[in-house]
Amino acid sequence: MFEEAKHLRIPGPTPVPPAVQRAASKAMINHRSPEFRRIALSVQEGLRYVFQTEHDVVVLTGSGTAAMEAAVANLVSPGTKALVLVGGKFGERWLELVQAYRGEAVVLEYPYGEGVRPERVAEALAAHPGIEVVFATQNESSTAVLNDIEGIAEAVRRGSDALLVVDAISGLGGAPLPMDAWGVDVVVAGSQKCLMLPPGLSFVAASERAWRRMERSASPRYYFDLPAYRKAGAKGETPYTPNVSLFFALEEALALIQGEGLEKGFERHRLMRDMVRAGIRALGLPLFVDEEWASPTLTAVAGVEGLDVEQLRKVVNTDFGVILSGGQGELKGKIFRIGHMGYATPLDMITALGAVELGLRRAGYDAPLGAGVRAAQEVLLQWLM
Amino acid sequence: MFEEAKHLRIPGPTPVPPAVQRAASKAMINHRSPEFRRIALSVQEGLRYVFQTEHDVVVLTGSGTAAMEAAVANLVSPGTKALVLVGGKFGERWLELVQAYRGEAVVLEYPYGEGVRPERVAEALAAHPGIEVVFATQNESSTAVLNDIEGIAEAVRRGSDALLVVDAISGLGGAPLPMDAWGVDVVVAGSQKCLMLPPGLSFVAASERAWRRMERSASPRYYFDLPAYRKAGAKGETPYTPNVSLFFALEEALALIQGEGLEKGFERHRLMRDMVRAGIRALGLPLFVDEEWASPTLTAVAGVEGLDVEQLRKVVNTDFGVILSGGQGELKGKIFRIGHMGYATPLDMITALGAVELGLRRAGYDAPLGAGVRAAQEVLLQWLM
Repeated sequence: MFEEAKHLRIPGPTPVPPAVQRAASKAMINHRSPEFRRIALSVQEGLRYVFQTEHDVVVLTGSGTAAMEAAVANLVSPGTKALVLVGGKFGERWLELVQAYRGEAVVLEYPYGEGVRPERVAEALAAHPGIEVVFATQNESSTAVLNDIEGIAEAVRRGSDALLVVDAISGLGGAPLPMDAWGVDVVVAGSQKCLMLPPGLSFVAASERAWRRMERSASPRYYFDLPAYRKAGAKGETPYTPNVSLFFALEEALALIQGEGLEKGFERHRLMRDMVRAGIRALGLPLFVDEEWASPTLTAVAGVEGLDVEQLRKVVNTDFGVILSGGQGELKGKIFRIGHMGYATPLDMITALGAVELGLRRAGYDAPLGAGVRAAQEVLLQWLM
Repeated sequence: MFEEAKHLRIPGPTPVPPAVQRAASKAMINHRSPEFRRIALSVQEGLRYVFQTEHDVVVLTGSGTAAMEAAVANLVSPGTKALVLVGGKFGERWLELVQAYRGEAVVLEYPYGEGVRPERVAEALAAHPGIEVVFATQNESSTAVLNDIEGIAEAVRRGSDALLVVDAISGLGGAPLPMDAWGVDVVVAGSQKCLMLPPGLSFVAASERAWRRMERSASPRYYFDLPAYRKAGAKGETPYTPNVSLFFALEEALALIQGEGLEKGFERHRLMRDMVRAGIRALGLPLFVDEEWASPTLTAVAGVEGLDVEQLRKVVNTDFGVILSGGQGELKGKIFRIGHMGYATPLDMITALGAVELGLRRAGYDAPLGAGVRAAQEVLLQWLM
């Protein structure tokens, strides 16, 4: 109907707040200028708040995968022994990166739709001495699972000297990850998820221990040389031309996040999750992930007999203007995913569930109209009390 | 939660499409330039399409009331006998304007919540010979009534030589008003309703007969001298500095309207009306206006025992982010109004009804959650078949 009236309910890119969009539209400036330096220093403060760290956070002009590769390139040399936790597409990406840099990967697989149990991490570390880095995924968006990073960090610290590197791309800002308090060494994030920005920037925060370890990497790197970003960053600079428009936007997005308050933001994400899960349950559809591992930033719904989830996604988009995600890899056609991260409100969940109900009917599946909405409304009213 | 995530469900200003917003943000230009002339000539074509007329449409920099005053100033001299149809705040505005220009007003009042019956117009014209102008309201937004302009025009043409001037501010683009086909002489509109623009521009379309009649007006006028706008407009100019940004936006909005197609737009507005009315009925709340007169661009809901409508509006806004209108004048506290005009989709009605249901609960009124949404969903599914 109206192309720009679509509701983007996918796990990123997420809707961009108008104020952030306006900031991104500011007139271009010289990135070697006092104006840019002011912005670069200002966003460092805001990023420390969001990453809940006292350490340095660097900004790369690249997607989340660029930041993941930067972490690997600076911490994995040929032969470096790394434990990789794999329970979905993004765990696999860590594995592919470690292999690309010729690290010696020890893979700990955990089932799709579940998180990894910290005991299993402890066991793996005990079984494979000499592991230098553990690569984990906070929010495995391919399965809509939130891992227990606090527990994993404790297992890693107790059982080894290894660094813990966490992909928090689809979780940071939506689920707690106080890296200093939990003892996480490296956290990687992207701009287009809970940070409410367009894609194009990514972030690496690292502990002192991690920054020191980076000096030892024998892997070739130039654009991904994180210490160069850190050094330039201290002066409010970037080693190479940054995405200046997104720095404007980042400053505004961080102000919005600080304005809401990180804890309030976590609470909002949990509320949206609980609304969506209650709604899906009321529609009689199976949730792909149990309560224990349910992500606050997206929800995966399993298909059922008589429902073509790809057809559902199609009609929800074309007939009602809500864009949902499908499954990735082996989950394609088996699940659909509803994003509730970043610039999204509880009322948006009512809208999304209303559209899913309509879509189920249009896809020929007999769902009770209004029932999912009502269940979500009840969760919201309960929360407001 | 997020200031800019509010849903503006009032009878104007209405949400502005991002493309229109972007157009309004273009760099300023000289209004005495070929670039501006190109835009001014282009929007004239688009306006003829929206007004469904072959006649000239002029653009004023001012609100809808400015265009209403311009119509009066150019058609009412001291002593001009005018029939004014009054059934709400905007009919009253015609009356106030006619009185301000010292016309001799004959008032035909019709009940709040109803439209005027064309027979009554015919009777009034017969009872008061010498009426030169009839002032009518297409969509009386204070009561959410759509008048039968086709019937009124027929009554005026049959019973008199009077010009028919119609305030279509909150209806044009949302409800049919083919002025040439129906024989309406002057149609007045504003930018911030179904035309999907910010407030600041208004429009007057006039028949040849009306343009000729304007030459006879003895009322003082300068900024509101419509023939001056018409003359300048023929060359793509404006007599005084126009709101250039809104001309950029107008060109874009007209492209969106033409892209959807006027008839499709009317259908969408009727669908939104039917969804909202079905939803309100399912919640057990009384509709203020009967089917016969129900506006496709907004719906008025009457209060009931045990419900404070002002409290409802407050919580729907603060707790759920949906902005509704209250009643105006003597209707204040007695009704609330849901806007569904311009840049709004059927799914937006699900969202609004979901919020109204939640708000009713928060305002202490026991409404059945999900019931209004379900009724609206059923209307939408029926329509899609």
